Amino acid sequence: MAANVPDPSRILSIQSHVVSGYVGNRSATFPLQLLGWDVDVTNTVQFSNHTGYGRWGGLRFDAEHLQDIFDGLDKNGLLRYSRMLTGYMPSAAVVQTVLSLVKKLRAREGGEEGGLIYLLDPVMGDMGRGMYVAPEVLPIYQEMLQYSTIITPNQFEAQALTGIDIVDLVSLKKVILTLHKKHKVPHVIITSVELPDADLAAIGAQKTLADGRPAMLQVGSSCEIHLEAGERQEPNLEEENLQVWSIQFPEVQGYFSGVGDMFAALTLGRFHREGQMASQANGATKDLTPIAKASELAIASLQGILSNTCKVIDQIEKDLPDSTGKDEAQEKVDRMRRRELRVVQSKKEIESPMIVYRARWIGS
Amino acid sequence: MAANVPDPSRILSIQSHVVSGYVGNRSATFPLQLLGWDVDVTNTVQFSNHTGYGRWGGLRFDAEHLQDIFDGLDKNGLLRYSRMLTGYMPSAAVVQTVLSLVKKLRAREGGEEGGLIYLLDPVMGDMGRGMYVAPEVLPIYQEMLQYSTIITPNQFEAQALTGIDIVDLVSLKKVILTLHKKHKVPHVIITSVELPDADLAAIGAQKTLADGRPAMLQVGSSCEIHLEAGERQEPNLEEENLQVWSIQFPEVQGYFSGVGDMFAALTLGRFHREGQMASQANGATKDLTPIAKASELAIASLQGILSNTCKVIDQIEKDLPDSTGKDEAQEKVDRMRRRELRVVQSKKEIESPMIVYRARWIGS
Repeated sequence: MAANVPDPSRILSIQSHVVSGYVGNRSATFPLQLLGWDVDVTNTVQFSNHTGYGRWGGLRFDAEHLQDIFDGLDKNGLLRYSRMLTGYMPSAAVVQTVLSLVKKLRAREGGEEGGLIYLLDPVMGDMGRGMYVAPEVLPIYQEMLQYSTIITPNQFEAQALTGIDIVDLVSLKKVILTLHKKHKVPHVIITSVELPDADLAAIGAQKTLADGRPAMLQVGSSCEIHLEAGERQEPNLEEENLQVWSIQFPEVQGYFSGVGDMFAALTLGRFHREGQMASQANGATKDLTPIAKASELAIASLQGILSNTCKVIDQIEKDLPDSTGKDEAQEKVDRMRRRELRVVQSKKEIESPMIVYRARWIGS
Repeated sequence: MAANVPDPSRILSIQSHVVSGYVGNRSATFPLQLLGWDVDVTNTVQFSNHTGYGRWGGLRFDAEHLQDIFDGLDKNGLLRYSRMLTGYMPSAAVVQTVLSLVKKLRAREGGEEGGLIYLLDPVMGDMGRGMYVAPEVLPIYQEMLQYSTIITPNQFEAQALTGIDIVDLVSLKKVILTLHKKHKVPHVIITSVELPDADLAAIGAQKTLADGRPAMLQVGSSCEIHLEAGERQEPNLEEENLQVWSIQFPEVQGYFSGVGDMFAALTLGRFHREGQMASQANGATKDLTPIAKASELAIASLQGILSNTCKVIDQIEKDLPDSTGKDEAQEKVDRMRRRELRVVQSKKEIESPMIVYRARWIGS
């Protein structure tokens, strides 16, 4: 047993790798390392750059390669992680391999208490593009949910996982309740959600921030899940007991790749389980949950990184070759390059973010 | 042409990747990122852990995969590096692919001035273990030398590259001269070298440091190489004009993997070309060369990291399962785990190293 005691500083991160640019593990690793985590990095692909460029070279790794990696770690007693992070996986077979790994790690735990903190980012698609992974991936992610600690779907992914469309506050709560009750997920963050104006007003949220910029809305909820004989039990939770928090923060114009991956990484790196259910143990105080605090810090770091990225976009544009006569593909490449996150230039924002956007209880 | 102007903050690093532990790119990347470099990371293998453990899982990537990566970068105008670092490569075919890449990058340069700074660490073997790569690799590295800016062979590798055994100060100088003259390498560092006692005394070096610890000896030398029509010319240099510096620093007992990889990375990250030949332009001052200054900083960081690593070895030993009845293979695994470099825990030592061990001119 001693050999399986989790090492308190080690995170296993399973995501894609690009040689150039910052998505997947390239977006997650440096920030987590900067926060002091020993990140074990399993790459699910090796591409020259992210596929948004339109042109790239490289390989998706198959499930056998990843299984071989996990077996190698296991043989050396290295599968002793206190935390785990998964993002984009290139095939249903790879997701299945990771599911087997998580099941094995959970089976080795005596109980949930002090066990692996697994942040599952169920990367499948978004509202703009729809599903961009094979449909066979969905049921495997649905099975994986009961082994996760924290999930960070966007609206599209939360809808896909539960089969419920989020069209208003009622359906949003139904989605969260389903993730807690049916899928037994302790901590849910829906990273961005759109609600009708009336529902925004009802929860005290705005369409635009004080400075006039369009506002994004993130919501989250936690729920204690009990174990019996190592199995998660369906929590005794009804809609009226749900405690949902929200954070609003500025929408950054245009699309930056790797933002979701970095949010998931920072949230996991900033999460402290201690006092996790304080707000529910003592309803009167309504303190923020640890996951809401982690999200505040993650959003603060990300806003800083995005701000650094936007600041240099103009400069990079000046340095780029004249675009006259460039074809459409080259324009796209240049646009993608300009929008790569300024990660190594943002040490301060990662280590000591300034929290501007605060979480608050919905309806409070 | 503008599209090929090197980006001043970008390093391409081509090395091995391990999921757990710190060798190859895993040893090089975080320190370089911490120093502010945008490191583009090309992995030549993905293993669960380094092979010193005796057991591992994973793959060596083939030359086609790497060529595909380089082609992908090129198509997107991303092959615009100001610096490049190569370490262990898993096959002669991969070394050949990297040679083609370097030739292409050099061919695109107008001249050496302001061109790519390429640190080639010709990882082939060491004095203890001999050659641990395929012998076909050697002639490809020999051809690669003329495209490098800095090389960091150990004694075994310097001997293999030149075909000259280092048995005394005379043969050491012959090796360095051969690397400068025949192979046209501007900056040579032989990372550790053993000399007879009399020769050590002759250059003012010690077998042991003031505190009684055994001393390692590193030597280096720089030489201006001129270009004609893009081709490096053999420098007009004789043994008596060689200016060799040395640094002595404590030998850390036992073997730590990834130290050579990190030394190479830190040396490249700390190297500033400005004023590079000051000492030769103004012989009287005999200021240290930029490469000697870079090595001082790299050694200072490494000594700090090794010290942090040794400090926790005792603690880790306590936490490890009782070794009674463990087999030899398990003992080896545990030993390797204890000796993984404490990289993310050594931010201070990487960012602000304290220089204790100074370079000095040999014979001065």
